[in-house]
Amino acid sequence: LAADRARWWGWGEPPAGSALPLGAEALLREDMGLDVSVRTPAVSLEEVNLPDSALPTSAREALVRVVGEEGVREDRPERVLRAAGKSYPDLLRQRTGDCSTAPDAVVAPRTAAEVAAVLDVCAAAGVAVVPFGGGTSVVGGVEPLRGACGSVISLDLEHLDRIAAVDTRSLTARIESGLRLPAAEAALNAQGLTLGHFPQSYEFATVGGCVATRSAGQASTGYGRIEDMVVGVHCVAPAGALDLLAVPATAAGPDLRELVVGSEGAFGVITETELRVRPVPEARRYEGFFFRSFAEGSEAFRALAQEGATPDVARLSDESETRVSLAMAGRHGVKARMGEALLRRRGYADGCVAICGWEGSAKEVGRRRARTARALRAHGAMAVGQSPGRAWVRGRYAAPYLRDELLDRGVLVETLETAATWSALPGLYAGVSDALRGALTADGDPALIMCHVSHLYRPGASLYFTFFTRAHPGAELEQWRRAKTAASDAILAAGGTITHHHAIGHDHVPWLAREVGETGVSALRALKDQLDPAGVMNPGKLIA
Amino acid sequence: LAADRARWWGWGEPPAGSALPLGAEALLREDMGLDVSVRTPAVSLEEVNLPDSALPTSAREALVRVVGEEGVREDRPERVLRAAGKSYPDLLRQRTGDCSTAPDAVVAPRTAAEVAAVLDVCAAAGVAVVPFGGGTSVVGGVEPLRGACGSVISLDLEHLDRIAAVDTRSLTARIESGLRLPAAEAALNAQGLTLGHFPQSYEFATVGGCVATRSAGQASTGYGRIEDMVVGVHCVAPAGALDLLAVPATAAGPDLRELVVGSEGAFGVITETELRVRPVPEARRYEGFFFRSFAEGSEAFRALAQEGATPDVARLSDESETRVSLAMAGRHGVKARMGEALLRRRGYADGCVAICGWEGSAKEVGRRRARTARALRAHGAMAVGQSPGRAWVRGRYAAPYLRDELLDRGVLVETLETAATWSALPGLYAGVSDALRGALTADGDPALIMCHVSHLYRPGASLYFTFFTRAHPGAELEQWRRAKTAASDAILAAGGTITHHHAIGHDHVPWLAREVGETGVSALRALKDQLDPAGVMNPGKLIA
Repeated sequence: LAADRARWWGWGEPPAGSALPLGAEALLREDMGLDVSVRTPAVSLEEVNLPDSALPTSAREALVRVVGEEGVREDRPERVLRAAGKSYPDLLRQRTGDCSTAPDAVVAPRTAAEVAAVLDVCAAAGVAVVPFGGGTSVVGGVEPLRGACGSVISLDLEHLDRIAAVDTRSLTARIESGLRLPAAEAALNAQGLTLGHFPQSYEFATVGGCVATRSAGQASTGYGRIEDMVVGVHCVAPAGALDLLAVPATAAGPDLRELVVGSEGAFGVITETELRVRPVPEARRYEGFFFRSFAEGSEAFRALAQEGATPDVARLSDESETRVSLAMAGRHGVKARMGEALLRRRGYADGCVAICGWEGSAKEVGRRRARTARALRAHGAMAVGQSPGRAWVRGRYAAPYLRDELLDRGVLVETLETAATWSALPGLYAGVSDALRGALTADGDPALIMCHVSHLYRPGASLYFTFFTRAHPGAELEQWRRAKTAASDAILAAGGTITHHHAIGHDHVPWLAREVGETGVSALRALKDQLDPAGVMNPGKLIA
Repeated sequence: LAADRARWWGWGEPPAGSALPLGAEALLREDMGLDVSVRTPAVSLEEVNLPDSALPTSAREALVRVVGEEGVREDRPERVLRAAGKSYPDLLRQRTGDCSTAPDAVVAPRTAAEVAAVLDVCAAAGVAVVPFGGGTSVVGGVEPLRGACGSVISLDLEHLDRIAAVDTRSLTARIESGLRLPAAEAALNAQGLTLGHFPQSYEFATVGGCVATRSAGQASTGYGRIEDMVVGVHCVAPAGALDLLAVPATAAGPDLRELVVGSEGAFGVITETELRVRPVPEARRYEGFFFRSFAEGSEAFRALAQEGATPDVARLSDESETRVSLAMAGRHGVKARMGEALLRRRGYADGCVAICGWEGSAKEVGRRRARTARALRAHGAMAVGQSPGRAWVRGRYAAPYLRDELLDRGVLVETLETAATWSALPGLYAGVSDALRGALTADGDPALIMCHVSHLYRPGASLYFTFFTRAHPGAELEQWRRAKTAASDAILAAGGTITHHHAIGHDHVPWLAREVGETGVSALRALKDQLDPAGVMNPGKLIA
């Protein structure tokens, strides 16, 4: 992101933003009684409250000796852009111009050796370090907290952007951390290969950021989560480098790769990862299916996962999300095309839509598609063709732009996600839905809560919630915190994980302790103390 | 194992031992010039040198208060059986009656709570604890080392032998650590389920032992390694319990499950694991294929792995192992059946045999078998039918019994294994073969070195070596150490992992440090210090 162009208060770079679809405005008005005609845009960059840099001169000089004068930036656009990630609280703070906790400088090393030298300087000078890739964290992962340090830098990995090597025999690629996913895909595609990792943040997220946050992408049901792709990793910690061999499998003790994956910059900086890659698929096909209910669809998805009939992309919207997405699609939607009457006659009119996608050779896609469709039909599905699949593909990265529009118009909108075993999933869905509804409507406000299943595993699946309510100007953070706390408590109570693919960051720290217990946190703490004895690495993230 | 019946100096329980096949004796004589007619059996139990128990009376009394009088055993058969695992050095020591380092007592708690209480007693009294499941370690994993402690107990998990729960919707089972694999399979099979984990030590290995040592079984190409099956785990450490939620996937920081899996008792005692299970396969089919060379077969296996055409069992013997196994099979072997002349005419006479196995519904087995066979033929294979597959199934757990026979007859026989990316595999094969040959033949002795590929992954595969030479009575350990060191150095030099499925134990400790580096070892050390501050857990294993 070019700091002078990026939407530091929102998503992406203008003019990428998209207007609110007509259907959405009507829905918010009719369904929730929200008047979204008034816009309250973000303050201008000049209006942002940005304190002077507190980076000590001696530390600044030492950093300049490592990365050069151009590698240490303290100007307003650079610091403001890196003052927050992209969670609702982040955007709220940025939009109102509160950058009081912005990093004191943005430091951009050019090599892994320079990363190590920067960490040496910071550890010696007591300067906190927040590794920064795409800055797309929605859980406070790049919040520039100082911990016990007097100042904090944002360590920007933008210059570590090479594909260091491709091993076409082993189908692996060594990729530096700062490379953005689209650039990684483009370079791999040129060699006939793909990483197959497409999170919603795809346009801006970096490879290293995905590894550090244990990311899953929209096609991870097929391609695997990022940790399934990691065969080797290099992580520079203040106490030394973890250089973990690229091997397909090993029984050499606890898997230290799995300690680095998901370490969120709290132990060190991941500078390079060796990842599995695959041949670019010759064909892609995405299709829609209808179910009579979310429960019916979930059971069908369980059958897919356990019978080995999974597609690469598998998403199932609940009744609420289905209703909203069909309303937004208007006369282009499935209901309009198939005819409401037909759907009603067959029992699908108030049902749920699923999107399935297959990628591979044309023959494989055909064979696998037939297998999935057969299993889904056996569990109650009605196939509704490729049109909903194509619509999903078109809009797959659009939601964060829409969120900016909604924030402009006084709507509180946030997402959260979890995963559980198939046995726990119905209780988890009900528990989180109820908790969100209770928290959001406590003051008599309207609430819209939607959910989808988006990642299938043999033992269980993920749930992704999106919720909307009327924002109370000046009290949005309290509203958000109440909903977030209620949902997170409900997740733990129902046997879910506090996060399936958003990571811990700062926001989930209290629930990690409940999920892995005191002994688990003490183990992570011991690791951090060993690898980062000065406590400068991303303070306040992952563990308290 | 009943201590009064088990072969404390070898494998299994009599009369399970099998005689040396006729072909083997001839091969050793003709091929290697070894006279294997003289037998030197193990000493009798009464002749074993077993020191008095050094367990302090106060510690003994405290342990009795936890597990009862019958739970603390100090008699000769019990202590001798748990004095060693099943590596070549272990058996050598046992056969000559050297149990000078036997555990001072065998303690058998009945519940996870009793395990915790035993650890409390031992931590307070400075008594070392060696968790003991099936006792089948071949890397010194159950060697009763005392570390800085004055005494050591073998913590036998035999009473933790229940399947605590089966979740048929999520297809997972919570299994206590001391349950042996055949008992686990029998109980699961009764519910129509299978774990699908069949290491060569299957008859005696426990579920917890497999998890603690990051085990892979003969069908793990299809069913996955043990870590791929773990969804939740409970580990009792002296500092507290790690109780890790059963979730299908999570982004909640570093994966602590992956720290417990492979921890080899050095952090704590795994008392229970929740594992993925699958429906019992309706059909099983195992077949043989011939390749003109190991290199050709390896390339064909790479194609299987990368084209998604893998069978569940996939093994490829090199030329040497093929020659030996055909000689042992004699007139029942493929060569005899197909006709040497035909094989020679088609170029396979000096080639390599592969075994592939498929399990699942009859339809799936048929479909997948056809796919594998098509891919193998495209890469040079000749299908040789089900007879070699059936022979492999019959003998799949036999090798350790044969080893006892060979040790009786003065043959040094040992195995070791590794894994690497497909790119590194040819160099690894050559490097380890050369290193072993050099070390074994340095004094003019004959050497037989065989190898097979047994686990396929998209980025690489495993290599499993078996080697034979004439044992020098009284100097066997030096011979062994020279070969082991040369092979291990060669593994690291060629980019392999020091172990693909045997674990670190005591024997691989020096090479783990080279594989994960000083920073990696320091991270493991920090974890151990946190979870086991008194340093009583399995001293000398995993890390020095």
